[in-house]
Parts: sequence; C-alpha cells; structure tokens
Amino acid sequence: MSRHFNFCSGPATLPLEVLERAREELVDYQGRGLSVMEMSHRGDDFIEIAARAERNLRELLSIPEGYRVLFVQGGASTQFSCVPLNLLGGGGTGNYLDSGVWAKKALAEARHLGGAHVAASTADLGYRRAPAQGEIVLSPDAAFLHYTDNETIGGVAYDYLPEAGDVPLVCDMSSSILGREIDVSRFGVIYAGAQKNIGPAGLTVVIVRDDLLDRARPETPQMLSYRQAADHGSMLNTPPTYAWYLCGLVFEWLKARGGVAAIAEVNRRKAARLYAAIDQSEFYSNPIEAGSRSVMNVPFRLRDESLDQRFLADAEAAGLLYLQGHRSVGGMRASIYNAMPEEGVEALIDFMDGFARRHG
Amino acid sequence: MSRHFNFCSGPATLPLEVLERAREELVDYQGRGLSVMEMSHRGDDFIEIAARAERNLRELLSIPEGYRVLFVQGGASTQFSCVPLNLLGGGGTGNYLDSGVWAKKALAEARHLGGAHVAASTADLGYRRAPAQGEIVLSPDAAFLHYTDNETIGGVAYDYLPEAGDVPLVCDMSSSILGREIDVSRFGVIYAGAQKNIGPAGLTVVIVRDDLLDRARPETPQMLSYRQAADHGSMLNTPPTYAWYLCGLVFEWLKARGGVAAIAEVNRRKAARLYAAIDQSEFYSNPIEAGSRSVMNVPFRLRDESLDQRFLADAEAAGLLYLQGHRSVGGMRASIYNAMPEEGVEALIDFMDGFARRHG
Repeated sequence: MSRHFNFCSGPATLPLEVLERAREELVDYQGRGLSVMEMSHRGDDFIEIAARAERNLRELLSIPEGYRVLFVQGGASTQFSCVPLNLLGGGGTGNYLDSGVWAKKALAEARHLGGAHVAASTADLGYRRAPAQGEIVLSPDAAFLHYTDNETIGGVAYDYLPEAGDVPLVCDMSSSILGREIDVSRFGVIYAGAQKNIGPAGLTVVIVRDDLLDRARPETPQMLSYRQAADHGSMLNTPPTYAWYLCGLVFEWLKARGGVAAIAEVNRRKAARLYAAIDQSEFYSNPIEAGSRSVMNVPFRLRDESLDQRFLADAEAAGLLYLQGHRSVGGMRASIYNAMPEEGVEALIDFMDGFARRHG
Repeated sequence: MSRHFNFCSGPATLPLEVLERAREELVDYQGRGLSVMEMSHRGDDFIEIAARAERNLRELLSIPEGYRVLFVQGGASTQFSCVPLNLLGGGGTGNYLDSGVWAKKALAEARHLGGAHVAASTADLGYRRAPAQGEIVLSPDAAFLHYTDNETIGGVAYDYLPEAGDVPLVCDMSSSILGREIDVSRFGVIYAGAQKNIGPAGLTVVIVRDDLLDRARPETPQMLSYRQAADHGSMLNTPPTYAWYLCGLVFEWLKARGGVAAIAEVNRRKAARLYAAIDQSEFYSNPIEAGSRSVMNVPFRLRDESLDQRFLADAEAAGLLYLQGHRSVGGMRASIYNAMPEEGVEALIDFMDGFARRHG
C-alpha cells in the first residue's frame, strides 16, 4: 500500500503505528483467542484496557482529583443536549459564546431545551475571530458559560481561556483536545468527540467536576446523565469497547511521542508553516484574524474559485486527501491534528506552491 | 493463535471471516491509502459502505417500503428513552410487557420520563416464561406496546408475535435480531444494539415506520429524535463509521451463509442440542418453560453451586470463554448467537458432559 496524507476534519487521520498495532491484535488480542471487540466489557481484560486508557488520558491532560472522566456515546452533538440537561436542574440560564457553526449548534440545542443567553458573539464580524474576554457579558442567572474552543469549520480558535468567575466553564474541545496543554482545573465540564485527536468516531470523552454531577433536570434521560455514567464507570450499558481500546492506543502513542507539550510544539510548527505559505501567496487566502487562527483546522480559499475542483482532483492524485472545505462554506480546509505528521504539511505546501505556479 | 469459543452475551463473538477481512483492510481500505476509520463520513467511499450495509440489512430482514433504517449510537438503553420521547408527543401511555431484567429497564425509563402501563407481567412466576397473548391488557390510551423479544439475562423469549391491534408494536430485538425470520410489517419500531448479532458495540439499529417519525415530544433532544436521524441519513453528526462498516461485513457474511432463514435453522439446531444436553443431565438445569426458552441465550445452573468457579476455570482452560451468568443472577449462561458455530456448541456440550462425569 501507499499511505496517503489525510486532511479530513473528522473522522481524521490516525497514527500509522496505532493502526498497525490494531491490525496486529485485531483477530487475537495478546493470545487471548479473541478480538477486543468480542470481549465482555465486564471481563478483566477489557476492564484493564478501559482503566489504562483513562489513566493515560488523566496523565496526558494532568486531570486533577475531583474530576470524573466519562467515556460515552453520541458525539459532541449529544453533549449539546447533555450540558443543559445536566447543569440546569437548579435553575439559571446557560450562557454561550458564539464563535461559529459549532457554537451555534450548541446554542440552538440549549434553546430547544429551554433557553439560553448569548454572552458574546462575533457573528457580525462574519466569525473572523473569536469573542474577546472584554466582550463577554454574562446573564445575572448564568448557570454555566459554554464555548467552543476550536471551530472545526470556521478555523477559529481562542488564544485565551475565557474567564467566568464562579460560573462553571463548559468547553466543547472536540477538535483541539490533546493538541495543546490546558489547565483542567479551570473548567467545569470539557467534552470532545473522539474522531479528531482521540481516536475513531463513536466515542466521546467528558471530563466533569464532581460538584456538577448532581445538577441534572429530573427529565434527563438516564443514558444522558453524567451522574449515571460516573457511578457506573461509563458502563451503565455496554460501552463502545473497540473505540475505547483504539483511543487507548492513541493515548499510548501520544505518551511515547512525549505527551501534550511535545505535540503542541509540533502542532504550532505545522500551523505556522501552513499559514505562512497561505499568507505569502497571492493565490490562497485565509480570512481569520491572526490571534484567532486555529492550529488544528486551516481553511483557505483559492483566489479563483473556478479552480477548486481541479485543485481537489490534483491533490487527491498526489495522495493528499479530503481537502474540501465543509459543504456549508466551500473552499478548502486542511485539518492537521496531532496524527498529521509534519511531512504531510510539507507535502501539502509543496503541492499548493506547485498548483499556484501552474495556475497562477 | 488458537481461536477460542466465546459465549459472551455481548459484546459477542463475531464471525472469524469478518475479523480476518477487517484485519486485511484495517490499515488500507481497498488501496485507498487510509483506513475506513479515517474516512470522512460524507465522502463517496464511506457513503457507499453505509448504503451497502443498509441495503443488505433491508434484504436480510425483508424490510418493506415505508420503514426507515437508522444507525445510531447509545445502545438499547438509549432507546429506552427514545421510545417514549419519540412516540408520546401526541399523548397516550406507553404499554409494556414485563418479561425480565431488560423489559423492566425499558419500563423504568418510561416511568422516569412520565409514566407507563404494564400490560402483562410474569414477574410473579419468577420470569420462567414470557407473558402470553391472552394475558395482555392494554390501557385504553395505549400509544404503543413495547416488548423485549429475547431476555438476554433470563434466557426468556416469545414464541409468538404479540398482537396489539392498531397500537404500534415496539420491540427491543437486541439479542435476537437476524437470528430468525420476522415480519417487519407487523412492527412500529424495532431496535437492537449491535453487539450480539449485528457487529461490535457502539452502534444501534432502529427500524421505524414512517408514520411514527412525527410523534415526538417537543423536549426530545435532537440527537435522540427519530425524525432528525431519518432526515439526515443517520448523519446528523458523525456516525460511528467503523462500527457501521463492521456491521456491514457481518451482513455480507450472513448473506453468504444463506441469510436469516438458513441461520435460523442452524440456531434452532444449536439451541435444541444444548437444551437437550441440559435436560438429560441431573447435573445441570434450566428453569425456563419449554415454549419460552431463548434460542440465543441459554442460562443454566450446576446442581452444586460450589462447583461454579471450578466449572468456569476449567471451561476457560478448554478455550470456552465467558460462560459466567449475569452478575445479577449467577450461574452459567451460554450465548449462542449467529456467529457461534455449531462446533462451539458441540465443544461446550462435550465439556459439560465431561465435567459432570468428573464431579457428578
């Protein structure tokens, strides 16, 4: 085979080492005579796989005592419901920062489930940057402040950690978790769909502070309850065992690469190289203000949109996959998560330069 | 490696051919230069994988026009919430048949979300059989009748299809779907967690009649809405792509084995052999009445419980895995789903005979 560079925004490229180990163990896990996906989730072997994954995630993110780590299903979109359901049982209003498509989806679901307050928005700026700290105005009854750390579609990220005083900070970290160091103790809830920096689609990580486990509305479905998941070790019912195992392999890979601090340095280098190539070109452009540019998702446009399909076809022929921007915005997008090697970004830049020369 | 026989109730044994094909394609799917788990769910390759899986499932179950097939997350336990949320928007009461642990869980969640009526129960009989048709008493405002086709823990199943007149029939078919032929047109909703007869844990199949898509309560979380899933081809957000792909491989395997009618014949043979071995023995027993015995999950007890741990240890040493009964009931349980070959059941019977001779 020839391994291609895959810039998909998610499900995203995984480390080759992880895939190869999964292949090696797929039919027979370490001589047990069966696959991980055939194991009882209550058996010793899987319990150890699950516990090791949590241990490694805790170590990678320096998750302090007093926080539970939940491995659940449904993606970040299910968390859009879980957050208001689990946090508004005592009343109050969910406050939301509006930074683009994903923030708006979280906000829409909060409204659908009863109401929400927009504490700041950059919609009027066409989401060219994230809301600034000084723009945040909480409602007097704010029960939490929710924000989207990295807008996967818009390519917008925060270069600071929003401050909300005593109000619990809730963060959708789907497309940035493990990509840089964070201070978990500053958060009430962090959630992330796995399919960018954690593993395959089908698993969602939720990190929740203990004191927030008992604020659920009574009508919260049991399977959406943080308390239920916490009390049952994320096994109120059968968890997505194989996805959990694969995430564990990714955590091991990341530890072997030196952990989050080390990969963050690589990520900054990759992004800086790609943005520089875009900015130095007359042929490509990225509209996001410097301080809000995502390190994980780099959207860009060709000056001449009529070349878009040609660009994508040539890129694919060159082994550079899934560079099409989200269908809602068009253009291009290169997602360069942890598992995208620097050579992949270099290959993309070389390709972009060549394409610009041929068509510029 | 030596492949063992795995009697786990779920996650359950998968066909070896499926695991081997998954291994072969894991790192590079058909020369595409990436794994299925790294593909965009909106790309042509995955769309084809997803559509083929649905086509094959429709063919295997002869699902008629007028039914949607949804591939969602959260397991049957999430469906315990989805059923009342999606079907009670027009008022009325969910009616439930109580046949054991799983029926009771579905019922408990319906009560948690607002109330339910028990239309029949065999709790007083210790769940030694399923409720009979003549025992079913619907409430006057019945909005649906829910039953659990096969009690995975109790080993109790229905040998008839409950009749509810005009009231939509809703069935948790998690541990029996694809194990025998069914007439889908008799049902309003069928749901099933994948991890028994369909594939790995982390995917749930819901088959829902079109006219039931618009009865949801307004507070239904978007990700739990049948209508949303149907309108978005089960891709309101990123689906569990790799689990979906693996389920598709299982469907192809089942078609190659001759489909549901052919496997049903094998299943009947396997179950008949095992129950006969239990019944003919003084050493083992199964308490379920003949007409309600599960073809998929065969619980049994040793006359002398003090030998349980020895039995399990010897079985494991003989390559017969996960025979321990559910922690809530103890004893033994052999789950003999579609992917358990007849040789596995024969090996189990041989082992049981030998154990009984040594310790009887």
